[in-house]
Amino acid sequence: MTAASYFHLQGRDGEARTGALTTPHGVVRTPAFMPVGTAGAMKGLHWREVRDAGADIVLGNTYHLMLRPGAERIAALGGLQTFTGWNGPMLTDSGGFQVMSLAQLRKLSEHAVTFRSHIDGAKVELTPERSIEVQRLLGSDIAMQLDECVRLPAGRGDIERAMQLSLRWGERSKRAFESALPGYLLFGIAQGGDVAELRQASARGLVDTGFHGYAIGGLAVGEPQAVMLAMIEEVAPILPTDRPRYLMGVGTPEDILEAVARGIDMFDCVLPTRNGRHGMAFTRFGAVNLQNARHADDPRPLDEESAWPSTRSYARAYLHHLVKAGETLGAMLLSEINIAYYQTLMQDIREAIAQGTFQQFRQQTRANWARGDLPPR
Amino acid sequence: MTAASYFHLQGRDGEARTGALTTPHGVVRTPAFMPVGTAGAMKGLHWREVRDAGADIVLGNTYHLMLRPGAERIAALGGLQTFTGWNGPMLTDSGGFQVMSLAQLRKLSEHAVTFRSHIDGAKVELTPERSIEVQRLLGSDIAMQLDECVRLPAGRGDIERAMQLSLRWGERSKRAFESALPGYLLFGIAQGGDVAELRQASARGLVDTGFHGYAIGGLAVGEPQAVMLAMIEEVAPILPTDRPRYLMGVGTPEDILEAVARGIDMFDCVLPTRNGRHGMAFTRFGAVNLQNARHADDPRPLDEESAWPSTRSYARAYLHHLVKAGETLGAMLLSEINIAYYQTLMQDIREAIAQGTFQQFRQQTRANWARGDLPPR
Repeated sequence: MTAASYFHLQGRDGEARTGALTTPHGVVRTPAFMPVGTAGAMKGLHWREVRDAGADIVLGNTYHLMLRPGAERIAALGGLQTFTGWNGPMLTDSGGFQVMSLAQLRKLSEHAVTFRSHIDGAKVELTPERSIEVQRLLGSDIAMQLDECVRLPAGRGDIERAMQLSLRWGERSKRAFESALPGYLLFGIAQGGDVAELRQASARGLVDTGFHGYAIGGLAVGEPQAVMLAMIEEVAPILPTDRPRYLMGVGTPEDILEAVARGIDMFDCVLPTRNGRHGMAFTRFGAVNLQNARHADDPRPLDEESAWPSTRSYARAYLHHLVKAGETLGAMLLSEINIAYYQTLMQDIREAIAQGTFQQFRQQTRANWARGDLPPR
Repeated sequence: MTAASYFHLQGRDGEARTGALTTPHGVVRTPAFMPVGTAGAMKGLHWREVRDAGADIVLGNTYHLMLRPGAERIAALGGLQTFTGWNGPMLTDSGGFQVMSLAQLRKLSEHAVTFRSHIDGAKVELTPERSIEVQRLLGSDIAMQLDECVRLPAGRGDIERAMQLSLRWGERSKRAFESALPGYLLFGIAQGGDVAELRQASARGLVDTGFHGYAIGGLAVGEPQAVMLAMIEEVAPILPTDRPRYLMGVGTPEDILEAVARGIDMFDCVLPTRNGRHGMAFTRFGAVNLQNARHADDPRPLDEESAWPSTRSYARAYLHHLVKAGETLGAMLLSEINIAYYQTLMQDIREAIAQGTFQQFRQQTRANWARGDLPPR
């Protein structure tokens, strides 16, 4: 594999990196947070709001899309970017993680994972080759290899078996991707649970195979943050510096800040939209629970200094009312506010790294979160 | 009451009228359709989308707002326009209709209607005076008198009793409104069910009392369209031509077109957002059910000639997918598309009346609806 012409590092500060990742549908500024548009839609947001919030790239779930509306159908309709109207860079996962968490009657073999659809019970076989085929039909800018993700805690034997299987599936995924058009990217996924030497072995095996980028999977599945960060510290030094690094399914703003400090370039998580649907806002001063009655008469916005209009204009009293009344608009506004908060955080992180002030930014940001929300009025 | 300086008729074509209604929060072009923002929010739409779609005025439900978050609270927060961020003209109903349809243990007397809140079971008394007080606390540009609406079919005795009570409550509402600031408007409501002479008596009684505008209530409650139109024809000639006329809770695009032809200036209905949440789109060529599998592979938009971006850009296949997958974005897009359709219809109606081509427009519009949707691809 030749030098990574699609990924340009533009600044470093300690282990933190900032750069630009070029995909067929556009350039992604890194570190990047990818909002999750599970089934071809972002819950509670219009695509224009995702774009306005500053997202360069979004994530789609292969498992959901292959079951409904179907990969061949989306391909016939011009691919996921055209189908959804997002029209920008998209990364798709392999489908493996959702098979483990959503599908019924799952059966794993060397060849494939077979399962029954959670939608209609149909029996489906997912091989590494089919996962890549589906992702190519979807038109993903960045495809992920099929892997097996083990829930923690788990025994070392199970973790090692799944890690080795994931390495072999990574090789098969790479072969299946060889005929992809230039510019489309395939990422391998490091597994190995919470066992340092298995994480290292996984990373070395992936690098031997060679991918356009490297993901760290199987974290943020219930283990303490310290374990997650320790595993990143085991894996990151093994990965080539000229390839993007993606920490899958992470996380809270603090998780992201700390992972960036350890050399991670890409993230995805449902947290901003899921928490938005449950009345929770992410702000400069930490999480704010709009369910709380303290907001009922408070005319102040969530953060009057925010650059995002909804964050600085809607009264807490109004957001509280919408949440209590179960109005869709409450979930819409808080999801939008949270996605915007995450994107602002990423933009600030990129600027701090570029200016060599990331350590000060990290300290100040953590201090702000620790300060907590404004006192009640 | 002096001549209606707040309402200027700018064109007539047959009985159809177009004009401008001035309120404290802005001017409303008539005929006007008021989207319904029940509890201070439009279901599935941002306020900016309601505005962009062309709505000059929206409706809020006094019943919902007085129970949660409470009229005094909204007043302390600057009124409904500031609270919600809509910042434009708002009409509120009296609360009476929802008391009849939603509240429990309802008890009606000459003095008041008492009921238990459907939210927390609290006992609430609503008098004509309290309804006006609540609407003034909310800061409604247009307040409605408290009335009693009888479900059809009903006996003449019941209809007459409710109509007479509504007239007396109208007088009390007017007295309670006397100290309102200049520019704020109060509408009376004609009742009388499906009995022509009761409708006439109600209208005459209201005109004797004198209101800023006149509503026709108690229609679109299950009776045939012909009955509704016949009742409008009984009432409209009795109402002063220089006051706005509002047909409450109506209706389908066809209902609106036919009521405009009979001299109605204002409408409200939950149909565009409610049907949007159920996968139904209103279009130039009639209603389209996006649940239908015929759309699954159809890359065509709902109407490529629409001026509204979502109507002319999103593929039917995508909308179908969103509806089938239960994605919030499906309800959001279809609600927005439907509100935009209604507002476009009103704009076209206003232009046709101003140009004296309303009868041709009415025929052409009805022919388009009758034509039906595009044949399957």
